[in-house]
Order: sequence, then C-alpha cells, then structure tokens
Amino acid sequence: MKVKHFTEVANEDANIDGAQGANIRWVLGPADEMPNFYLRVVEVKPGGNTPHHQHPYEHEVFVLAGQGELLDPDGKPFELKPGVVAYVAPDDLHQFRNTGDEVLRFICLIPKT
Amino acid sequence: MKVKHFTEVANEDANIDGAQGANIRWVLGPADEMPNFYLRVVEVKPGGNTPHHQHPYEHEVFVLAGQGELLDPDGKPFELKPGVVAYVAPDDLHQFRNTGDEVLRFICLIPKT
Repeated sequence: MKVKHFTEVANEDANIDGAQGANIRWVLGPADEMPNFYLRVVEVKPGGNTPHHQHPYEHEVFVLAGQGELLDPDGKPFELKPGVVAYVAPDDLHQFRNTGDEVLRFICLIPKT
Repeated sequence: MKVKHFTEVANEDANIDGAQGANIRWVLGPADEMPNFYLRVVEVKPGGNTPHHQHPYEHEVFVLAGQGELLDPDGKPFELKPGVVAYVAPDDLHQFRNTGDEVLRFICLIPKT
C-alpha cells in the first residue's frame, strides 16, 4: 500500500513538442511499479495547452480545477470544468487547453503498456 | 471520445457485504467499453465505510472531498483528505472509512481484468 499527497510529487515540465505551460506529476507511475495503469496529475497554465497530438493508447481524465476545453479529432471543443470526466480513445487526435484565469488541473490516466 | 460530468452517472448503492453508507458511480465502466481500466467515483456517508476486504486486483485512488482513513493490511490507518492518492496492491486487506461530517468522495480505479 502506498499513500501520498499528489503535491509531494515533483511537478515536472511536460517536455513534449507542442506543449505550452504544461506540467505533469507522475503520482503513481513507473517508479511505483504499478501493475496495470499510471495516474498522473497534469497542470496547464492560463493560455497554455497540451500538444495537439495522438498516440496508440487511451486517456481517462478527471478535471480537478480550472476551466478549459478538450478538442476532439474534428477540432470540436468540449467544455472542461471540475468534475468533468473524459475518455480519449487510442489514436484520437486531441488537445487540452486552458481557457480560464487559473490553473487547469486534471488527473490523466494511461495504461502501462 | 466521451465527455460527461461524473454527476450525470447514477450513484448506485454499493451493494457489497460489509459496506455501510457507500455509493458508487461507474463513470467510465463496462458500459463504456473501456480498453484497460475503469474509473469509478465512490461516496461514503459520515460514519460509513466500505467493506474490510481484499481482492486479487489493485486500486488506484484519488480523494476528491471529505475526511477519512484507509486501513492497511495491519489495520494501520492512513489519513484521507482531498488530494491524497492511495495505491492498494492486489490481495491487500483494506477498508475506507469516513471519519468526518461530510461525504467522503474518491476516485477508485480498477483494471478491466
């Protein structure tokens, strides 16, 4: 059993092409030897965004704080606010954008493989 | 892509032996055909608890609201409050208890298989 507060984990620069003002905490990640999936907490500063990209694995997302939008593969925006849950399917083009004045914070889960 | 607010999902009675005042929302569950893991939101009423049990799969947990404790296999309590993340390993005996005056709400993820 492991118990920690998410803020105890380093808030790293999300070092991905196309990301602006985005940070990530690997709260339950490879270092924790999770058996099946990883729990990360992502923060996007006002005006910032994650890359407009796609990859062969899914995201499951839960918005904790802030305001933003999630672009679907057709560029259609879905509103993000606390309590919104999103599923991004494998290979779906997507982007998270902060459209508010405060940090947009969300949990973002990915499979281990 | 699927986007919804967690409160749009039915808050079902957690119909498990030993649970008291516990409800669960399968926000991204079998009906959503998730490929690898399921995202549920659990609520425990003041004075309530989940079963003191174990199972052959892990939990990854993120506390959203309220105050409580998580008992580890030796009965040692870990404090739960917003932002606390917990990993319960497969076969670990565990229980979530609400020790506060408001609803204890947490995300609880499990693998699909």
